[in-house]
Amino acid sequence: MVIIGGGFGGLSAAKALRKADVRITIIDRHNHHVFQPLLYQVATATLSPGDIASPIRWILRNQRNTRVLLGDVSAIDLQARRVTLVDGAVVEYDYLIVATGASHTYFGHDEWAAHAPGLKTLEDALAIRRRILVAFELAERETDPARRQRLLTFVLVGGGPTGVELAGTLAEIARQTRPEFRNIDTHATRIVLVEAGPTVLANFAPTLRDAAHRSLERLRIEIRENARVTGIDADGVTVGSERIAAGTVLWTAGVAASPVTSTLGVPRDRAGRVIVEKDLSVPGHPDAFVVGDAAASVDGKGRPLPGVAQVAIQGGAHAARTIVRRLHGETSQPFSYFDRGSMAIIGRGSAVADIRGLRISGPLAWLAWLFLHIFELIGFRSRLVVMVEWAAAYFTRQRSVRLITYQDH
Amino acid sequence: MVIIGGGFGGLSAAKALRKADVRITIIDRHNHHVFQPLLYQVATATLSPGDIASPIRWILRNQRNTRVLLGDVSAIDLQARRVTLVDGAVVEYDYLIVATGASHTYFGHDEWAAHAPGLKTLEDALAIRRRILVAFELAERETDPARRQRLLTFVLVGGGPTGVELAGTLAEIARQTRPEFRNIDTHATRIVLVEAGPTVLANFAPTLRDAAHRSLERLRIEIRENARVTGIDADGVTVGSERIAAGTVLWTAGVAASPVTSTLGVPRDRAGRVIVEKDLSVPGHPDAFVVGDAAASVDGKGRPLPGVAQVAIQGGAHAARTIVRRLHGETSQPFSYFDRGSMAIIGRGSAVADIRGLRISGPLAWLAWLFLHIFELIGFRSRLVVMVEWAAAYFTRQRSVRLITYQDH
Repeated sequence: MVIIGGGFGGLSAAKALRKADVRITIIDRHNHHVFQPLLYQVATATLSPGDIASPIRWILRNQRNTRVLLGDVSAIDLQARRVTLVDGAVVEYDYLIVATGASHTYFGHDEWAAHAPGLKTLEDALAIRRRILVAFELAERETDPARRQRLLTFVLVGGGPTGVELAGTLAEIARQTRPEFRNIDTHATRIVLVEAGPTVLANFAPTLRDAAHRSLERLRIEIRENARVTGIDADGVTVGSERIAAGTVLWTAGVAASPVTSTLGVPRDRAGRVIVEKDLSVPGHPDAFVVGDAAASVDGKGRPLPGVAQVAIQGGAHAARTIVRRLHGETSQPFSYFDRGSMAIIGRGSAVADIRGLRISGPLAWLAWLFLHIFELIGFRSRLVVMVEWAAAYFTRQRSVRLITYQDH
Repeated sequence: MVIIGGGFGGLSAAKALRKADVRITIIDRHNHHVFQPLLYQVATATLSPGDIASPIRWILRNQRNTRVLLGDVSAIDLQARRVTLVDGAVVEYDYLIVATGASHTYFGHDEWAAHAPGLKTLEDALAIRRRILVAFELAERETDPARRQRLLTFVLVGGGPTGVELAGTLAEIARQTRPEFRNIDTHATRIVLVEAGPTVLANFAPTLRDAAHRSLERLRIEIRENARVTGIDADGVTVGSERIAAGTVLWTAGVAASPVTSTLGVPRDRAGRVIVEKDLSVPGHPDAFVVGDAAASVDGKGRPLPGVAQVAIQGGAHAARTIVRRLHGETSQPFSYFDRGSMAIIGRGSAVADIRGLRISGPLAWLAWLFLHIFELIGFRSRLVVMVEWAAAYFTRQRSVRLITYQDH
């Protein structure tokens, strides 16, 4: 059988099958699994890429029934039961799990992509890190006050957890790096968080949203709600009738299922996600499953499931269990999602968390966030190093990985 | 005054002037200082770039007489006393220290550069890391035995410390990653170290060279001495009359002073290094100095100084002191280099060290190497993190940063 994607969904499926009598090929176009909830910390120079990513091959080294293939899937043929890679290689399967995740979408404005990068891969994170750091460097060299202020203006499009986390960390960078500059006052940094919907952190309870609001305002982050972006270019952003001159625009607003889902030839929703059966299989193809961000799945009450790690992890495991049931001649069970809660960090000592109805904010939520994320990282070494990095960052108030690296050939 | 370059030489000069009544502008095309002796550990996936590099701005944050400029110098005009950047900006100076270091040279065979990258910057290290990791991935997918063996063959051109260190670490990677592959036996990895001169580690005493030889042979590294590379292409290397089919060729053989020294219009040696006066000033320009790898400097006995960190560090400090003397109306003193010794690491528990005549090899030299390098890193955080990373690498026998990242936009 074949698993496409070594993210949360694919890895969870592979691990759930470690004792099954199957031969698994897991294909990913990256050689590494990324712990996506901490990707924004790479983008904001707190952690190194190596702290939150591990080779898929290494993670599965002891699982003898699994081989790992570095390859970019270009098409899936559900009828012929085979997967084609970009380099022309063909891999056949009896069972298939598609866990290819999502990439960003600009709602028909692909021309915005060049000016407002999104954050899905390590490469994205390094590109964003470079943009942020270069903006401060250019501002330091700029003599024209208006252009300098433009360089010190950051607009975050999208008020979900990633947007909030980026905004909070940017505010900290501005505060912490002040002694390093001679010509600019980094306190003049302007951070604008733009959300098209009625509120930032829409998936959180109103009390937590209020707490997050207060924290963001304390960091002097400008929040624009019910605000639709109508233009992005090299000079800034247009939000409704307001023009914001900005040197850096980051995009966390729209996600769409990875393009390979279009080759399946089955119905998808507006975001390109495959509309799956209750057991996560593809309609008409009980041997093929789609899990995580690439799937439009619903909970028991018919409500769409969010694009978070837990949905992918539990979905991957469910698809794996369903395959084992099929192999044993049993019928499949519907997927039921267990919501473990949601969290968002805002800044030093500040976060919001909703853990199955237990709603907390402030330092306690922040500590809970830290420990849960360290706990969930893969590998003892990553946990240890991230703990050391965070402790050093907390006590020295430094961003340690502020490296501008260019196109690495 | 202006310092060009934030490497060992430039940083050392800036720090030596921290209490001087001067206004310093330090210009570098990277925003970070790199601890070059550990660069090969980034190239071989042991350390993250952030572990061995720090923003120059951060290092000098408390030195109020110094501003840091991110910029690429295109020309130096010694007559007009000004420095021009690639973007057209001009910076004037009264005193100048050129500490622009070296890049690799292919002895007139620039066409080799594409097939045999060198190791001078973080970008170089990340590119080499990708090549090494991709070679194993491609081998795992290759079905033709000859092509597979070619992919598993690594040739290192240049038998200095960097070549030896890369060879030793590659042998470890091959040994450690064996359980992760299903189709290849990484023990079949072939590593060839090619040195044009009569011996590898030519700067070391014969007893230490012998010890290094034995260690390399224990790791099954093939050593070719008195062996001149006559061709490098996409398929491998020609060494004299021998053809070695190799998937990865790395270049540590030749260095040349950075190209900007050619704009000075003063005599240079064959490697492009500026032939400086005894006080490291440029002949005819007592207000301009060249230090480190960009200078051809000699010791008290007229012997050329090696291209190592200590020569740059001590040279930078000497140029700084000379400027202070000039400002006080005193005459300059000749530069005298204090040789603190040299070290090279070969593998786990194996190194050679020559510390002012004290010659050691084996585990003791290895420990000395570890502690000296941790001690010399900049910043408490880097020391702590590198210590944790090395401890984890030692006990888990893992390379933790095996990430293939592509051109980051």
